[in-house]
Amino acid sequence: MAIDRLQRMLVEFAAEREWERFHTPKNLVMALIGEVGELSELFQWLTAEESAMITHDAVGRSRVEEEIADVFLYLLRLADVLGIDLQAAAEAKILTNGKRYPPDKARGRAVKYSDLDNG
Amino acid sequence: MAIDRLQRMLVEFAAEREWERFHTPKNLVMALIGEVGELSELFQWLTAEESAMITHDAVGRSRVEEEIADVFLYLLRLADVLGIDLQAAAEAKILTNGKRYPPDKARGRAVKYSDLDNG
Amino acid sequence: MAIDRLQRMLVEFAAEREWERFHTPKNLVMALIGEVGELSELFQWLTAEESAMITHDAVGRSRVEEEIADVFLYLLRLADVLGIDLQAAAEAKILTNGKRYPPDKARGRAVKYSDLDNG
Amino acid sequence: MAIDRLQRMLVEFAAEREWERFHTPKNLVMALIGEVGELSELFQWLTAEESAMITHDAVGRSRVEEEIADVFLYLLRLADVLGIDLQAAAEAKILTNGKRYPPDKARGRAVKYSDLDNG
Repeated sequence: MAIDRLQRMLVEFAAEREWERFHTPKNLVMALIGEVGELSELFQWLTAEESAMITHDAVGRSRVEEEIADVFLYLLRLADVLGIDLQAAAEAKILTNGKRYPPDKARGRAVKYSDLDNG
Repeated sequence: MAIDRLQRMLVEFAAEREWERFHTPKNLVMALIGEVGELSELFQWLTAEESAMITHDAVGRSRVEEEIADVFLYLLRLADVLGIDLQAAAEAKILTNGKRYPPDKARGRAVKYSDLDNG
Repeated sequence: MAIDRLQRMLVEFAAEREWERFHTPKNLVMALIGEVGELSELFQWLTAEESAMITHDAVGRSRVEEEIADVFLYLLRLADVLGIDLQAAAEAKILTNGKRYPPDKARGRAVKYSDLDNG
Repeated sequence: MAIDRLQRMLVEFAAEREWERFHTPKNLVMALIGEVGELSELFQWLTAEESAMITHDAVGRSRVEEEIADVFLYLLRLADVLGIDLQAAAEAKILTNGKRYPPDKARGRAVKYSDLDNG
């Protein structure tokens, strides 16, 4: 499966470089943040419209792909080190969100579920 | 495939709530950051050793699973909205990293590739 | 001076709660990230125009003030623990930025200094 | 006063480069995140002990000073654009935190105030 396969590649990658001791969950969360920060830098000065077109030129596409991939790789590694099944956790969270945000209450409104009844 | 399946669930989730107009790439990057911040909060005061045991009790495991899932869901949605193939981008980035961090130079050293020759 | 005064308040705050051992630079950076994540959550679904009006109602103002304060407090504490003079570092950085972004080259352009000559 | 003075320098800096239109609160929050990400990268692979010594060599000190300054500058600019008094907000938040974390309950414990009664 796609996720497992990538995680096995990352296990091997770390082992070949003897990086396992750096890959504590705490450190991996910080590394994830670093990559999310780089992703944010690509979007920070763009308007909403410009952000939707960032992949329309080759340089923009390549930069965004690389940063999104970096975030994904650290997330895969973090989940693996913690023994968390990323696919199952994601599906469970979609179910939870479905209950927190009933379509009839949440329709067209971007408010946190704890504020949904206030409107 | 696992990633496609989750992305289709998220498309449907957003459509049922008429949330598409909120899901610009720029907004999704900010939402991703919010979730990464919540993940960071779970780890901020833990030692490296404690961070490796966070999933050993049920409450800790459940909290971490939920935050990791949130990060993953926004990453999946962002990639989908941008038309980026997450799996392909991740595999391409592993190859790039393999060249940037040759095992013999990078072994046991956690330095950025641009600093690898300084040591 | 304002910054020193706040930092002394934070030293006392931590001492009264015996929190010094939690306040390693690494942990404080993670705590800072958590607060920046909460700040991001307040802005994530807003348009640029809405973001400029977030302080126009009392609830919005209060939430933003609180999150900005949280970020500032951890930044003050981090600088203090590291022995960094925040005021001096900020003034030095403005000078550096002034050289990196000469007005005639940077005017009206939001690009990174390393890309300034490309356009 | 120190904070005002820095904010006036940043107003002038933005004006000279005609960057005001980029400095919406939303964009400045994203720029802040980018800088926090760069700060995180400096600490991500360090142990707690190493993180406390990062300023002991000149290169480490200079890098950390620069990233902390970047975070501070965007925070100053953000507060200014939003019309928030950073000093007052920080003092108010210390008072709030003092009530949320009574010394006798919070002593030696790094738990969120909402969890303080669970221990």
